Amino acid sequence: MPEVPVPDSVEQFLREPHFAVVATLQQDGAPHTAMTWYDWEDGRVLLNMDHSRLRLRFLRNDPRVAITVVGRDDPYRHISLLGEVEEIYDDEGLTDIDRLALRYTGAPYETRDSDRVSAWVRVDRWHGWDASGARVTHAGWGAEGGS
Amino acid sequence: MPEVPVPDSVEQFLREPHFAVVATLQQDGAPHTAMTWYDWEDGRVLLNMDHSRLRLRFLRNDPRVAITVVGRDDPYRHISLLGEVEEIYDDEGLTDIDRLALRYTGAPYETRDSDRVSAWVRVDRWHGWDASGARVTHAGWGAEGGS
Repeated sequence: MPEVPVPDSVEQFLREPHFAVVATLQQDGAPHTAMTWYDWEDGRVLLNMDHSRLRLRFLRNDPRVAITVVGRDDPYRHISLLGEVEEIYDDEGLTDIDRLALRYTGAPYETRDSDRVSAWVRVDRWHGWDASGARVTHAGWGAEGGS
Repeated sequence: MPEVPVPDSVEQFLREPHFAVVATLQQDGAPHTAMTWYDWEDGRVLLNMDHSRLRLRFLRNDPRVAITVVGRDDPYRHISLLGEVEEIYDDEGLTDIDRLALRYTGAPYETRDSDRVSAWVRVDRWHGWDASGARVTHAGWGAEGGS
């Protein structure tokens, strides 16, 4: 079960293959951002990285992340998810990156000769803008809407 | 002069009105992300926020930010900029938000009755993917490419 339930409209949006930007924390605590594929399942976010990625080192050091998903056709529709990586494992057989590649490109992932790692993010808070142009947020945030 | 020069191709990309995600640091050091308009001038990034935005409070508390600019027509083209807010001021007369609104919508900003604040980000490092699909980064980062 998700820690923080999202309304159906947000759930549906997150299930679509939009692009996202993930923020992690560098060793000195400064933020680092990068574009990423993702998937959404049971209130958690799946990320997958080549084993050499700096952000993998960062989130092993500090599991706190923030992810903003930007609408592919309408970038004014966007949802930001704040949480923590709660599960991380080697992507044996490239199962998870194939899942993401199929979601985004319709085909398995091309590069087969480099190890990859999966991370599942538990979402604790979220905020964003709905299709109607209205600010949306989880119940814990007030008028500021978290943005 | 920019702290870290970018090649012409990146300069040209950043000048185009792509959408961006900005990461700031919450009071407890956790990352926070949100979608944003931006402009690029002389190696610095202009951000502009309603005075009530949480991220304004965050960057007044800790000026370190990360910004990923995602290609509007080709999201696989993206550039991430890491740096610090080095100038922050009230956007008197809404001059800066009008500049951004004109850049993105072709018209002045609609909402005139809420104060706004501008922040200029000095870029210290950058990384991303070029139009050719090649990893690009500033000279200080090696094979990992900062992503």
